[in-house]
Amino acid sequence: AYSTKEESTKRSVGRYPVPNKKDLPYDIVELMEEVELKTGFLPNVFKAMSHRPAEFRAFFAYYNAIMNKDGGRLSKSDKELIIVATSVVNRCPYCVVAHGALHRIYSKQPTLADQVIVNWKLANLSDRDLAMLEFALAVCRADNITEEHFERLERHGFDREDAWDIGMISAFFAMSNRIAHFIDLRPNTEFYDMGRMPRGA
Amino acid sequence: AYSTKEESTKRSVGRYPVPNKKDLPYDIVELMEEVELKTGFLPNVFKAMSHRPAEFRAFFAYYNAIMNKDGGRLSKSDKELIIVATSVVNRCPYCVVAHGALHRIYSKQPTLADQVIVNWKLANLSDRDLAMLEFALAVCRADNITEEHFERLERHGFDREDAWDIGMISAFFAMSNRIAHFIDLRPNTEFYDMGRMPRGA
Amino acid sequence: AYSTKEESTKRSVGRYPVPNKKDLPYDIVELMEEVELKTGFLPNVFKAMSHRPAEFRAFFAYYNAIMNKDGGRLSKSDKELIIVATSVVNRCPYCVVAHGALHRIYSKQPTLADQVIVNWKLANLSDRDLAMLEFALAVCRADNITEEHFERLERHGFDREDAWDIGMISAFFAMSNRIAHFIDLRPNTEFYDMGRMPRGA
Amino acid sequence: AYSTKEESTKRSVGRYPVPNKKDLPYDIVELMEEVELKTGFLPNVFKAMSHRPAEFRAFFAYYNAIMNKDGGRLSKSDKELIIVATSVVNRCPYCVVAHGALHRIYSKQPTLADQVIVNWKLANLSDRDLAMLEFALAVCRADNITEEHFERLERHGFDREDAWDIGMISAFFAMSNRIAHFIDLRPNTEFYDMGRMPRGA
Amino acid sequence: AYSTKEESTKRSVGRYPVPNKKDLPYDIVELMEEVELKTGFLPNVFKAMSHRPAEFRAFFAYYNAIMNKDGGRLSKSDKELIIVATSVVNRCPYCVVAHGALHRIYSKQPTLADQVIVNWKLANLSDRDLAMLEFALAVCRADNITEEHFERLERHGFDREDAWDIGMISAFFAMSNRIAHFIDLRPNTEFYDMGRMPRGA
Amino acid sequence: AYSTKEESTKRSVGRYPVPNKKDLPYDIVELMEEVELKTGFLPNVFKAMSHRPAEFRAFFAYYNAIMNKDGGRLSKSDKELIIVATSVVNRCPYCVVAHGALHRIYSKQPTLADQVIVNWKLANLSDRDLAMLEFALAVCRADNITEEHFERLERHGFDREDAWDIGMISAFFAMSNRIAHFIDLRPNTEFYDMGRMPRGA
Repeated sequence: AYSTKEESTKRSVGRYPVPNKKDLPYDIVELMEEVELKTGFLPNVFKAMSHRPAEFRAFFAYYNAIMNKDGGRLSKSDKELIIVATSVVNRCPYCVVAHGALHRIYSKQPTLADQVIVNWKLANLSDRDLAMLEFALAVCRADNITEEHFERLERHGFDREDAWDIGMISAFFAMSNRIAHFIDLRPNTEFYDMGRMPRGA
Repeated sequence: AYSTKEESTKRSVGRYPVPNKKDLPYDIVELMEEVELKTGFLPNVFKAMSHRPAEFRAFFAYYNAIMNKDGGRLSKSDKELIIVATSVVNRCPYCVVAHGALHRIYSKQPTLADQVIVNWKLANLSDRDLAMLEFALAVCRADNITEEHFERLERHGFDREDAWDIGMISAFFAMSNRIAHFIDLRPNTEFYDMGRMPRGA
Repeated sequence: AYSTKEESTKRSVGRYPVPNKKDLPYDIVELMEEVELKTGFLPNVFKAMSHRPAEFRAFFAYYNAIMNKDGGRLSKSDKELIIVATSVVNRCPYCVVAHGALHRIYSKQPTLADQVIVNWKLANLSDRDLAMLEFALAVCRADNITEEHFERLERHGFDREDAWDIGMISAFFAMSNRIAHFIDLRPNTEFYDMGRMPRGA
Repeated sequence: AYSTKEESTKRSVGRYPVPNKKDLPYDIVELMEEVELKTGFLPNVFKAMSHRPAEFRAFFAYYNAIMNKDGGRLSKSDKELIIVATSVVNRCPYCVVAHGALHRIYSKQPTLADQVIVNWKLANLSDRDLAMLEFALAVCRADNITEEHFERLERHGFDREDAWDIGMISAFFAMSNRIAHFIDLRPNTEFYDMGRMPRGA
Repeated sequence: AYSTKEESTKRSVGRYPVPNKKDLPYDIVELMEEVELKTGFLPNVFKAMSHRPAEFRAFFAYYNAIMNKDGGRLSKSDKELIIVATSVVNRCPYCVVAHGALHRIYSKQPTLADQVIVNWKLANLSDRDLAMLEFALAVCRADNITEEHFERLERHGFDREDAWDIGMISAFFAMSNRIAHFIDLRPNTEFYDMGRMPRGA
Repeated sequence: AYSTKEESTKRSVGRYPVPNKKDLPYDIVELMEEVELKTGFLPNVFKAMSHRPAEFRAFFAYYNAIMNKDGGRLSKSDKELIIVATSVVNRCPYCVVAHGALHRIYSKQPTLADQVIVNWKLANLSDRDLAMLEFALAVCRADNITEEHFERLERHGFDREDAWDIGMISAFFAMSNRIAHFIDLRPNTEFYDMGRMPRGA
């Protein structure tokens, strides 16, 4: 089987059947193996989306285009912070827990995601980060986005291309959170503790 | 230029610059020309998304995977109805007007989209269509989706694969509506009247 | 029968029985015939309200006092715009569709009402019109109305008498929308396309 | 002057000028004098609305058509209870205080309106009265009104004509509450204590 | 029995059994008798809370620490106004009616609490009182409390210790309102008219 | 000093000055030392509340009366789960993080609190626990609590005394969350990781 780890509950991969590795197209298996090798386990979103290979490819191609895009002022940990803050609004267990873990790893700040999950406005964030999340959350709520939104970002050093990056991540996860809800996607157990303890502890 | 029609207002293509045709990758120009040929004009979403070619490709590949997917119980007009009903929740001018037009054309029902735009529960819809929209709107609102949601769909003949189709379209347009908001995307003028009058009138 | 047009569905005149012309008081028949002559068909609100002649008279006397009032800065198309924008808040099919049609006719702008129906803040409106709708919507939501509301109107040339006119139309349609809901009043089919096409087309 | 009582504050008659008695049309003065004679003072709504004689006539003709209508199952105190319960939703000082007083007088229950003002579902109401308010509040919120709403009323002895009466009072005060807000209408001081104490106390 | 007054309805003391006086600890009986002597009747909250003597002691010790605290700028009537305004938000019959009565007595203003119950922003309050209620309601809604909140209070003469007093009363009644809801606590009939009429009337 | 641990940020003890140990009454110091000995550090709530000794005593006496009460069907981990689920509604950083830690310790379930923080309805909870949280959240929202609420609890083995316990904890933390907001109370850093890892790891 393509998954080398046993899940603690059957339910955690979601509501739709996950195909056997041998029944999946080669490119999908290849991506899964690459991710599993890098992460140490296969995140459930890969298993769940493999139910529809064409949509699997489109979803991860889109994810890749925005999360691994070169250039711009958003660090990897900025992007994860946007995902955590917006996924909390949609109460998405998979996205909050998995991307909270990735935020801890990229930011090396073990408690910040937990703070954002409870109350982003009270988290220990810089004014720049607050402005970034404010824009991301306006997009998340499907607010009308006005020139003032862009000007507020500019006052914290984000230009219009950065605004697009923030908005697109927020919009993409507005989709992902909703997919996770109808699939009933749950986080792999490994995510809960990732990045909490110093590596050498 | 790749667009043969003049827009009534500059603002209608949105907030980001649209590249010249000669500066766009060939595959993007090719898709645009194909769409313009088929539709009679180039919908503004193609122009606006061409600002980011990699995201353009990912967006339309995803769109194609769900809107032109073979099989399942959703007709073309069902899909457009889902888009109209959910885009109203997010008050998205582009998606409501453009897909309202497409619904009129595919359904040959010139007033149904207008009814759904004001109050979907009072529109002249069959019980099957109401059940379909109820599920789409639960996904749109990022509700927790439970077994009862799937059972209600089943009572109207939709199986779990149809549920995925409905949910995925709702989720994809949760993203599209939000992109349209930060880009400030507006409908081409052509969409407002499309499909209203009998062809021979 | 006093109605010369057949309705497409029985449901469209609402939930209460409509009296026969011969059983109605003369002044009500007279008003109906005058309206039908002028409009080309009898709008359903006249039929539905004739179920209660005393309330019919009061309703249309009030309507007439505010919609056909002399003086003030509100044009006929301004008044229709207020009705459309506030009736959308209450998701009233009759008022949105019928007054959207009247707006198209008075304003000669065939797409503006459709824009306001989806998202009034993003419609192609002047600052004056936005201020007018902002006040109308504050009244529609039953907000506390303060001196600042009046001052904002004044900055766009509306004095206190104009404010009364805007507020009264919004208040009257807060009533009408709710009556339409309990009567289950639906728009005549004729309204959907009125004013969309150039007369000579 | 037509008003024989001094108001405690100037603000209590609202934001628009009140005409002098001598400048008012005779029918309006006549109605005012009749009301003042009967009530012992002139309720502020008469003063405020006299700013616009045509609308004064339409408003009170409508009020009379529904509040003094013969027949039906709604008592005078039922009607006042509907007004209190719905006007609380719109936080309308005039309507809540004035009609709370009228309810105490008609019902001879000195504390029931105060209970409804805080929390209608916890007030000492019969199931019939709860059903009546439930319908009135559905209309007040501009909910879609369905057959189930009518059936629930029927189970408590209200037929469709009673439903119209309940709905129309709720709709009319949806208008009145909003007029009161933009006029800034406040209750006469007399209303606060009316009907609280036994007459002979 | 410790209560010398008969209640008009059984329901008014709430959902849990009230112990007999002889079964209650002496300190609780002593407090009850003291309150009854002072007030003229025993408020239902004392009866209802006596179901749990340890919690009775904690509740009234806390109440005493904040309501009878020496020093600070809050008068007795200020404190009652805070309770009325915040208890309205939670629609708590006991707290609104009982503390509305206490407000009338301490403030000697017989209509102000009734105004605050309907619409605090439109009540005849000083700017200082509006600022006090604005802070109390921000705490009541569990808003994030920021430096601006404290600065706004300061502009009306309230220092940080006063802010603590306002916030603590609001927080304590956030608890009390919820206790009253699950106990189903109702006001003693005596409260409704207390403080409305001049003593010598 | 009474605190033997340095806080990572000054801000974490809140907005009001914390008295020096030598200036505090003996009973307060004694309680603090006892807690610090047992927990290994002094939770910030003790420091913050010591600003007002009388309220400190009342607060912790109340806390003790409900959290350390003998009897009833609520385990220590049940109580912590109620606090976590309700404090999330009020977005209270201190209560969510501190009581999430206590839940992990008492329940020995290292991920359950994190699940409840994101979406309690999707957490791996028994039907009994879901019913318990449903009641706690109804009290938290200040809903009207009806007989049906108690009956639903009874179907899961909770009697009326248990209902009081659940309701009282929810009500007490409705107060605590609001106090934490105006004090700006933040969790001690130690709480974030408490109970996550097996002791011997």
